[in-house]
Amino acid sequence: MRYHKIPDEAVQRLPIYLRGLLFLLEQGCKNISSRNLADFLGVNHWQIRKDFSYFGGFGTPGTGYDIERLIKEIRKILKLNVVHKAALVGVGNLGLAVLAYPGFRIYGFEIAAAFDNDPKKIGQKVANITIENVSKIQTLRKRKIDLGIITVPCEAAQETFDALAKAGVMGVLSFSPCHKTSRKKLKVIIIDIAMDLARLPYYMPASRAAKA
Amino acid sequence: MRYHKIPDEAVQRLPIYLRGLLFLLEQGCKNISSRNLADFLGVNHWQIRKDFSYFGGFGTPGTGYDIERLIKEIRKILKLNVVHKAALVGVGNLGLAVLAYPGFRIYGFEIAAAFDNDPKKIGQKVANITIENVSKIQTLRKRKIDLGIITVPCEAAQETFDALAKAGVMGVLSFSPCHKTSRKKLKVIIIDIAMDLARLPYYMPASRAAKA
Repeated sequence: MRYHKIPDEAVQRLPIYLRGLLFLLEQGCKNISSRNLADFLGVNHWQIRKDFSYFGGFGTPGTGYDIERLIKEIRKILKLNVVHKAALVGVGNLGLAVLAYPGFRIYGFEIAAAFDNDPKKIGQKVANITIENVSKIQTLRKRKIDLGIITVPCEAAQETFDALAKAGVMGVLSFSPCHKTSRKKLKVIIIDIAMDLARLPYYMPASRAAKA
Repeated sequence: MRYHKIPDEAVQRLPIYLRGLLFLLEQGCKNISSRNLADFLGVNHWQIRKDFSYFGGFGTPGTGYDIERLIKEIRKILKLNVVHKAALVGVGNLGLAVLAYPGFRIYGFEIAAAFDNDPKKIGQKVANITIENVSKIQTLRKRKIDLGIITVPCEAAQETFDALAKAGVMGVLSFSPCHKTSRKKLKVIIIDIAMDLARLPYYMPASRAAKA
Protein backbone atom coordinates (compact mmCIF):
# COMPACT_ATOMS: atom_id res chain seq x y z
CA MET A 1 0.00 0.00 0.00
CA ARG A 2 1.22 3.47 -0.91
CA TYR A 3 0.58 6.45 1.30
CA HIS A 4 0.06 10.03 0.24
CA LYS A 5 2.67 12.56 1.19
CA ILE A 6 1.72 13.65 4.67
CA PRO A 7 2.82 16.74 6.63
CA ASP A 8 6.05 16.50 8.64
CA GLU A 9 4.10 17.40 11.77
CA ALA A 10 1.95 14.27 11.42
CA VAL A 11 5.05 12.10 10.85
CA GLN A 12 6.50 13.64 14.01
CA ARG A 13 3.47 12.62 16.01
CA LEU A 14 3.34 9.00 14.84
CA PRO A 15 6.31 7.87 17.01
CA ILE A 16 4.57 9.46 20.01
CA TYR A 17 1.41 7.46 19.28
CA LEU A 18 3.56 4.36 18.74
CA ARG A 19 5.30 4.70 22.09
CA GLY A 20 1.96 5.14 23.88
CA LEU A 21 0.38 2.18 22.08
CA LEU A 22 3.34 -0.07 22.89
CA PHE A 23 2.95 0.89 26.55
CA LEU A 24 -0.79 0.15 26.47
CA LEU A 25 -0.21 -3.23 24.80
CA GLU A 26 2.31 -4.09 27.50
CA GLN A 27 -0.37 -3.29 30.09
CA GLY A 28 -2.70 -5.80 28.45
CA CYS A 29 -4.98 -3.37 26.56
CA LYS A 30 -6.32 -4.69 23.26
CA ASN A 31 -8.69 -2.00 22.06
CA ILE A 32 -8.99 1.75 22.59
CA SER A 33 -11.19 4.60 21.38
CA SER A 34 -9.56 7.63 19.79
CA ARG A 35 -10.88 9.70 22.69
CA ASN A 36 -9.26 7.50 25.34
CA LEU A 37 -6.04 7.23 23.34
CA ALA A 38 -6.01 11.04 23.10
CA ASP A 39 -6.56 11.41 26.85
CA PHE A 40 -3.76 8.96 27.55
CA LEU A 41 -1.34 10.75 25.24
CA GLY A 42 -2.40 14.24 26.23
CA VAL A 43 -3.35 15.31 22.69
CA ASN A 44 -6.60 16.23 20.96
CA HIS A 45 -8.68 13.30 19.70
CA TRP A 46 -9.49 15.10 16.45
CA GLN A 47 -5.74 15.42 15.92
CA ILE A 48 -5.27 11.67 16.22
CA ARG A 49 -8.17 10.95 13.88
CA LYS A 50 -6.87 13.47 11.39
CA ASP A 51 -3.33 12.05 11.50
CA PHE A 52 -4.61 8.50 11.03
CA SER A 53 -6.86 9.62 8.19
CA TYR A 54 -3.76 10.35 6.08
CA PHE A 55 -3.14 6.61 6.05
CA GLY A 56 -6.69 5.47 5.46
CA GLY A 57 -8.15 5.59 8.94
CA PHE A 58 -7.38 2.30 10.77
CA GLY A 59 -10.62 2.23 12.76
CA THR A 60 -14.25 1.25 12.36
CA PRO A 61 -16.47 4.03 13.75
CA GLY A 62 -17.74 3.19 17.22
CA THR A 63 -15.53 0.17 17.84
CA GLY A 64 -12.25 1.91 18.59
CA TYR A 65 -8.78 0.90 17.44
CA ASP A 66 -7.27 -2.57 17.59
CA ILE A 67 -4.02 -1.70 19.38
CA GLU A 68 -1.91 -4.52 17.97
CA ARG A 69 -3.01 -3.82 14.41
CA LEU A 70 -2.45 -0.09 14.90
CA ILE A 71 1.12 -0.68 16.13
CA LYS A 72 1.81 -2.87 13.11
CA GLU A 73 0.43 -0.25 10.72
CA ILE A 74 2.34 2.64 12.27
CA ARG A 75 5.57 0.63 12.22
CA LYS A 76 4.98 -0.07 8.54
CA ILE A 77 4.29 3.58 7.72
CA LEU A 78 7.39 4.75 9.59
CA LYS A 79 9.41 1.89 8.03
CA LEU A 80 10.18 0.67 11.52
CA ASN A 81 9.07 -2.87 10.70
CA VAL A 82 12.71 -3.80 10.04
CA VAL A 83 15.79 -3.35 12.22
CA HIS A 84 17.77 -0.24 11.26
CA LYS A 85 21.45 -0.15 12.03
CA ALA A 86 22.96 3.15 13.11
CA ALA A 87 26.54 4.37 13.50
CA LEU A 88 27.48 6.98 16.08
CA VAL A 89 30.36 9.39 15.48
CA GLY A 90 31.95 11.15 18.47
CA VAL A 91 32.27 9.22 21.72
CA GLY A 92 32.42 12.18 24.13
CA ASN A 93 29.98 12.73 26.99
CA LEU A 94 27.03 13.12 24.65
CA GLY A 95 28.06 10.10 22.57
CA LEU A 96 28.40 7.98 25.70
CA ALA A 97 24.95 9.08 26.83
CA VAL A 98 23.43 8.16 23.47
CA LEU A 99 25.21 4.78 23.41
CA ALA A 100 23.80 4.02 26.86
CA TYR A 101 20.29 5.16 25.96
CA PRO A 102 17.85 2.30 26.48
CA GLY A 103 15.04 3.66 24.32
CA PHE A 104 16.23 2.69 20.83
CA ARG A 105 15.20 -0.96 20.84
CA ILE A 106 11.46 -0.40 20.98
CA TYR A 107 11.64 1.46 17.68
CA GLY A 108 13.75 -1.24 16.04
CA PHE A 109 17.10 0.55 16.13
CA GLU A 110 20.45 -0.99 16.83
CA ILE A 111 23.57 1.12 17.28
CA ALA A 112 25.99 -1.13 15.44
CA ALA A 113 29.13 1.02 15.29
CA ALA A 114 30.85 3.91 17.09
CA PHE A 115 33.69 6.08 15.79
CA ASP A 116 36.11 8.54 17.33
CA ASN A 117 39.42 10.14 16.36
CA ASP A 118 40.99 9.94 19.82
CA PRO A 119 43.68 7.17 19.84
CA LYS A 120 42.97 6.64 23.56
CA LYS A 121 39.35 5.77 22.83
CA ILE A 122 39.83 3.72 19.66
CA GLY A 123 39.72 0.01 20.49
CA GLN A 124 37.90 0.52 23.78
CA LYS A 125 34.53 -1.12 24.32
CA VAL A 126 31.43 0.87 25.27
CA ALA A 127 27.96 -0.69 25.57
CA ASN A 128 29.26 -3.80 23.75
CA ILE A 129 30.58 -1.74 20.84
CA THR A 130 34.27 -1.43 20.03
CA ILE A 131 35.13 2.17 19.18
CA GLU A 132 36.66 2.41 15.71
CA ASN A 133 38.86 4.99 14.02
CA VAL A 134 36.83 7.62 12.12
CA SER A 135 38.85 6.72 9.05
CA LYS A 136 36.76 3.53 8.92
CA ILE A 137 33.46 5.37 8.37
CA GLN A 138 33.61 4.40 4.70
CA THR A 139 32.97 0.75 5.66
CA LEU A 140 29.37 1.59 6.61
CA ARG A 141 28.01 0.97 3.14
CA LYS A 142 29.35 -2.59 3.08
CA ARG A 143 28.05 -3.21 6.58
CA LYS A 144 24.56 -2.02 5.59
CA ILE A 145 24.46 0.63 8.28
CA ASP A 146 22.14 3.29 6.92
CA LEU A 147 21.73 5.75 9.78
CA GLY A 148 24.29 8.10 11.29
CA ILE A 149 24.26 9.88 14.65
CA ILE A 150 26.53 12.93 14.98
CA THR A 151 27.77 13.75 18.49
CA VAL A 152 31.06 15.47 17.60
CA PRO A 153 32.12 19.00 18.61
CA CYS A 154 31.07 21.88 16.38
CA GLU A 155 34.36 22.14 14.49
CA ALA A 156 34.25 18.48 13.39
CA ALA A 157 30.58 18.47 12.40
CA GLN A 158 30.91 19.33 8.72
CA GLU A 159 33.54 16.73 7.85
CA THR A 160 31.65 14.10 9.86
CA PHE A 161 28.45 14.90 8.00
CA ASP A 162 30.23 14.74 4.65
CA ALA A 163 31.92 11.44 5.53
CA LEU A 164 28.59 9.88 6.55
CA ALA A 165 26.95 11.10 3.35
CA LYS A 166 29.82 9.67 1.31
CA ALA A 167 29.48 6.37 3.17
CA GLY A 168 25.93 6.11 1.85
CA VAL A 169 23.86 6.62 4.99
CA MET A 170 20.34 7.74 4.22
CA GLY A 171 19.42 9.41 7.46
CA VAL A 172 21.35 11.49 9.98
CA LEU A 173 20.37 12.47 13.50
CA SER A 174 22.66 15.32 14.47
CA PHE A 175 23.20 17.04 17.79
CA SER A 176 25.19 19.73 16.07
CA PRO A 177 23.77 22.83 14.40
CA CYS A 178 27.25 23.42 12.90
CA HIS A 179 26.95 21.76 9.50
CA LYS A 180 25.00 22.11 6.29
CA THR A 181 22.00 19.85 6.09
CA SER A 182 20.84 20.04 2.50
CA ARG A 183 21.88 17.05 0.51
CA LYS A 184 19.97 14.98 -1.97
CA LYS A 185 18.70 11.60 -0.80
CA LEU A 186 19.70 12.30 2.78
CA LYS A 187 17.22 13.19 5.50
CA VAL A 188 18.69 15.11 8.42
CA ILE A 189 17.11 15.73 11.81
CA ILE A 190 18.86 18.22 14.08
CA ILE A 191 18.47 18.17 17.84
CA ASP A 192 19.58 21.59 19.08
CA ILE A 193 19.14 21.45 22.84
CA ALA A 194 19.29 25.23 23.25
CA MET A 195 16.61 25.68 20.64
CA ASP A 196 14.27 23.34 22.46
CA LEU A 197 14.92 25.25 25.65
CA ALA A 198 14.20 28.48 23.76
CA ARG A 199 10.58 27.43 23.27
CA LEU A 200 9.90 27.20 27.01
CA PRO A 201 9.72 30.82 28.23
CA TYR A 202 6.98 31.62 25.69
CA TYR A 203 4.61 29.45 27.70
CA MET A 204 5.64 30.77 31.08
CA PRO A 205 3.55 33.31 33.02
CA ALA A 206 4.57 36.89 32.30
CA SER A 207 5.28 37.79 35.91
CA ARG A 208 8.59 35.98 36.16
CA ALA A 209 9.66 36.62 32.61
CA ALA A 210 9.17 40.37 32.94
CA LYS A 211 11.56 42.71 31.25
CA ALA A 212 14.59 43.29 33.44
CA MET B 1 1.51 44.54 22.90
CA ARG B 2 -0.46 41.33 23.37
CA TYR B 3 -0.23 38.48 20.90
CA HIS B 4 -2.96 36.04 19.94
CA LYS B 5 -2.54 32.43 20.89
CA ILE B 6 -0.50 30.93 18.09
CA PRO B 7 -0.01 27.27 17.12
CA ASP B 8 2.78 25.34 18.85
CA GLU B 9 4.30 24.60 15.46
CA ALA B 10 4.82 28.31 14.78
CA VAL B 11 6.36 28.81 18.24
CA GLN B 12 8.69 25.92 17.46
CA ARG B 13 9.84 27.62 14.27
CA LEU B 14 10.55 31.04 15.81
CA PRO B 15 13.80 29.92 17.53
CA ILE B 16 14.97 28.54 14.17
CA TYR B 17 14.31 31.91 12.53
CA LEU B 18 16.00 33.64 15.46
CA ARG B 19 19.16 31.54 15.15
CA GLY B 20 19.36 32.22 11.42
CA LEU B 21 18.78 35.95 11.86
CA LEU B 22 21.45 36.20 14.57
CA PHE B 23 23.88 34.51 12.18
CA LEU B 24 22.97 36.91 9.36
CA LEU B 25 23.38 39.94 11.64
CA GLU B 26 26.81 38.66 12.64
CA GLN B 27 27.71 38.50 8.95
CA GLY B 28 26.80 42.17 8.58
CA CYS B 29 23.37 41.78 6.91
CA LYS B 30 20.86 44.48 7.80
CA ASN B 31 17.85 43.71 5.64
CA ILE B 32 16.42 40.59 4.03
CA SER B 33 13.39 39.62 1.98
CA SER B 34 11.16 36.79 3.21
CA ARG B 35 12.16 34.84 0.10
CA ASN B 36 15.89 35.14 0.79
CA LEU B 37 15.39 34.42 4.47
CA ALA B 38 13.40 31.32 3.51
CA ASP B 39 16.14 30.15 1.13
CA PHE B 40 18.76 30.68 3.80
CA LEU B 41 16.79 28.72 6.39
CA GLY B 42 15.61 26.03 4.01
CA VAL B 43 11.91 26.63 4.64
CA ASN B 44 8.99 27.91 2.54
CA HIS B 45 8.69 31.69 2.30
CA TRP B 46 4.91 31.54 2.71
CA GLN B 47 5.51 29.67 5.95
CA ILE B 48 7.69 32.49 7.27
CA ARG B 49 5.18 35.13 6.24
CA LYS B 50 2.34 33.16 7.81
CA ASP B 51 4.24 32.64 11.07
CA PHE B 52 5.14 36.32 11.28
CA SER B 53 1.54 37.30 10.50
CA TYR B 54 0.46 35.85 13.86
CA PHE B 55 2.39 38.67 15.48
CA GLY B 56 1.30 41.43 13.17
CA GLY B 57 3.65 41.05 10.24
CA PHE B 58 6.95 42.90 10.96
CA GLY B 59 7.58 43.85 7.32
CA THR B 60 6.59 46.49 4.85
CA PRO B 61 5.70 44.84 1.52
CA GLY B 62 8.56 45.11 -0.97
CA THR B 63 11.19 46.39 1.44
CA GLY B 64 12.01 43.17 3.29
CA TYR B 65 12.65 42.70 6.97
CA ASP B 66 14.90 44.84 9.16
CA ILE B 67 17.00 42.05 10.72
CA GLU B 68 17.84 43.82 13.96
CA ARG B 69 14.22 44.79 14.59
CA LEU B 70 13.05 41.29 13.72
CA ILE B 71 15.48 39.75 16.21
CA LYS B 72 14.25 42.11 18.90
CA GLU B 73 10.61 41.30 18.16
CA ILE B 74 11.13 37.53 18.12
CA ARG B 75 13.06 37.69 21.39
CA LYS B 76 10.18 39.63 22.90
CA ILE B 77 7.55 37.17 21.68
CA LEU B 78 9.53 34.19 22.95
CA LYS B 79 10.23 36.06 26.21
CA LEU B 80 13.93 35.69 25.52
CA ASN B 81 14.56 39.41 26.05
CA VAL B 82 15.60 38.63 29.64
CA VAL B 83 18.16 36.18 30.97
CA HIS B 84 16.53 32.95 32.16
CA LYS B 85 18.30 30.91 34.77
CA ALA B 86 18.11 27.14 34.54
CA ALA B 87 19.00 24.33 36.93
CA LEU B 88 20.20 20.97 35.68
CA VAL B 89 19.49 17.78 37.65
CA GLY B 90 21.61 14.68 36.97
CA VAL B 91 25.30 15.19 36.22
CA GLY B 92 25.95 11.94 34.33
CA ASN B 93 27.28 11.80 30.76
CA LEU B 94 24.23 13.55 29.35
CA GLY B 95 24.26 16.18 32.09
CA LEU B 96 27.94 16.88 31.48
CA ALA B 97 27.26 17.24 27.76
CA VAL B 98 24.44 19.72 28.41
CA LEU B 99 26.55 21.72 30.89
CA ALA B 100 29.29 21.99 28.28
CA TYR B 101 26.89 22.95 25.51
CA PRO B 102 27.90 26.32 24.07
CA GLY B 103 24.58 27.13 22.41
CA PHE B 104 22.54 28.42 25.36
CA ARG B 105 23.95 31.94 25.59
CA ILE B 106 22.60 33.18 22.27
CA TYR B 107 19.08 32.53 23.50
CA GLY B 108 19.68 34.26 26.82
CA PHE B 109 19.96 31.16 29.01
CA GLU B 110 22.33 30.66 31.87
CA ILE B 111 22.70 27.32 33.61
CA ALA B 112 23.00 28.59 37.16
CA ALA B 113 22.86 25.36 39.19
CA ALA B 114 23.54 21.63 38.88
CA PHE B 115 22.34 18.87 41.20
CA ASP B 116 23.21 15.22 41.73
CA ASN B 117 22.70 12.62 44.45
CA ASP B 118 26.17 11.04 44.14
CA PRO B 119 28.33 12.06 47.13
CA LYS B 120 31.42 11.75 44.92
CA LYS B 121 30.07 14.38 42.54
CA ILE B 122 28.58 16.80 45.08
CA GLY B 123 30.97 19.69 45.69
CA GLN B 124 32.87 19.17 42.43
CA LYS B 125 33.03 21.95 39.89
CA VAL B 126 31.89 21.49 36.28
CA ALA B 127 31.76 24.32 33.74
CA ASN B 128 32.13 26.82 36.60
CA ILE B 129 29.18 25.35 38.49
CA THR B 130 29.56 23.60 41.83
CA ILE B 131 27.44 20.45 41.90
CA GLU B 132 24.94 20.54 44.77
CA ASN B 133 23.04 17.86 46.64
CA VAL B 134 19.59 17.18 45.11
CA SER B 135 18.12 17.88 48.54
CA LYS B 136 18.85 21.55 47.81
CA ILE B 137 16.50 21.73 44.83
CA GLN B 138 13.96 23.54 47.01
CA THR B 139 16.27 26.59 47.11
CA LEU B 140 15.53 27.31 43.43
CA ARG B 141 12.51 29.48 44.17
CA LYS B 142 14.56 31.83 46.35
CA ARG B 143 17.33 31.94 43.77
CA LYS B 144 14.84 32.89 41.04
CA ILE B 145 15.79 29.95 38.86
CA ASP B 146 12.69 29.23 36.82
CA LEU B 147 13.75 26.54 34.35
CA GLY B 148 14.71 22.93 35.05
CA ILE B 149 16.64 20.49 32.86
CA ILE B 150 16.20 16.78 33.67
CA THR B 151 19.10 14.48 32.76
CA VAL B 152 18.60 11.77 35.39
CA PRO B 153 18.11 8.03 34.74
CA CYS B 154 14.58 6.78 34.10
CA GLU B 155 13.94 5.56 37.64
CA ALA B 156 14.72 8.98 39.17
CA ALA B 157 12.75 11.02 36.63
CA GLN B 158 9.41 11.23 38.43
CA GLU B 159 10.76 12.41 41.78
CA THR B 160 13.04 14.89 40.02
CA PHE B 161 10.13 16.28 38.05
CA ASP B 162 8.00 16.56 41.20
CA ALA B 163 10.82 18.24 43.12
CA LEU B 164 11.33 20.82 40.35
CA ALA B 165 7.60 21.51 40.20
CA LYS B 166 7.50 21.93 43.98
CA ALA B 167 10.47 24.30 43.77
CA GLY B 168 8.39 26.56 41.56
CA VAL B 169 10.10 26.21 38.19
CA MET B 170 7.81 27.17 35.33
CA GLY B 171 9.39 25.26 32.51
CA VAL B 172 11.11 21.89 32.26
CA LEU B 173 13.24 20.50 29.45
CA SER B 174 13.42 16.77 30.03
CA PHE B 175 15.53 14.11 28.36
CA SER B 176 13.47 11.43 30.04
CA PRO B 177 10.19 10.01 28.76
CA CYS B 178 9.78 8.32 32.18
CA HIS B 179 7.66 10.83 34.06
CA LYS B 180 4.23 12.40 33.91
CA THR B 181 4.20 15.76 32.20
CA SER B 182 0.79 17.20 32.91
CA ARG B 183 0.87 19.78 35.61
CA LYS B 184 -0.80 23.13 35.87
CA LYS B 185 1.35 26.21 35.26
CA LEU B 186 4.29 24.10 34.14
CA LYS B 187 5.32 23.73 30.53
CA VAL B 188 7.29 20.59 29.76
CA ILE B 189 9.28 19.81 26.63
CA ILE B 190 10.53 16.25 26.24
CA ILE B 191 13.55 15.37 24.12
CA ASP B 192 13.32 11.64 23.43
CA ILE B 193 16.35 10.85 21.29
CA ALA B 194 14.96 7.51 20.10
CA MET B 195 11.75 9.16 19.04
CA ASP B 196 13.60 11.69 16.91
CA LEU B 197 15.54 8.85 15.33
CA ALA B 198 12.23 7.06 14.71
CA ARG B 199 11.18 9.78 12.28
CA LEU B 200 14.14 9.19 9.97
CA PRO B 201 13.38 5.91 8.17
CA TYR B 202 10.05 7.28 6.92
CA TYR B 203 11.96 9.60 4.63
CA MET B 204 14.47 7.02 3.42
CA PRO B 205 14.18 5.36 0.00
CA ALA B 206 12.20 2.12 0.15
CA SER B 207 15.01 -0.03 -1.31
CA ARG B 208 17.11 -0.18 1.83
CA ALA B 209 14.23 -0.15 4.26
CA ALA B 210 12.57 -3.13 2.58
CA LYS B 211 10.90 -5.74 4.71
CA ALA B 212 13.44 -8.30 5.90
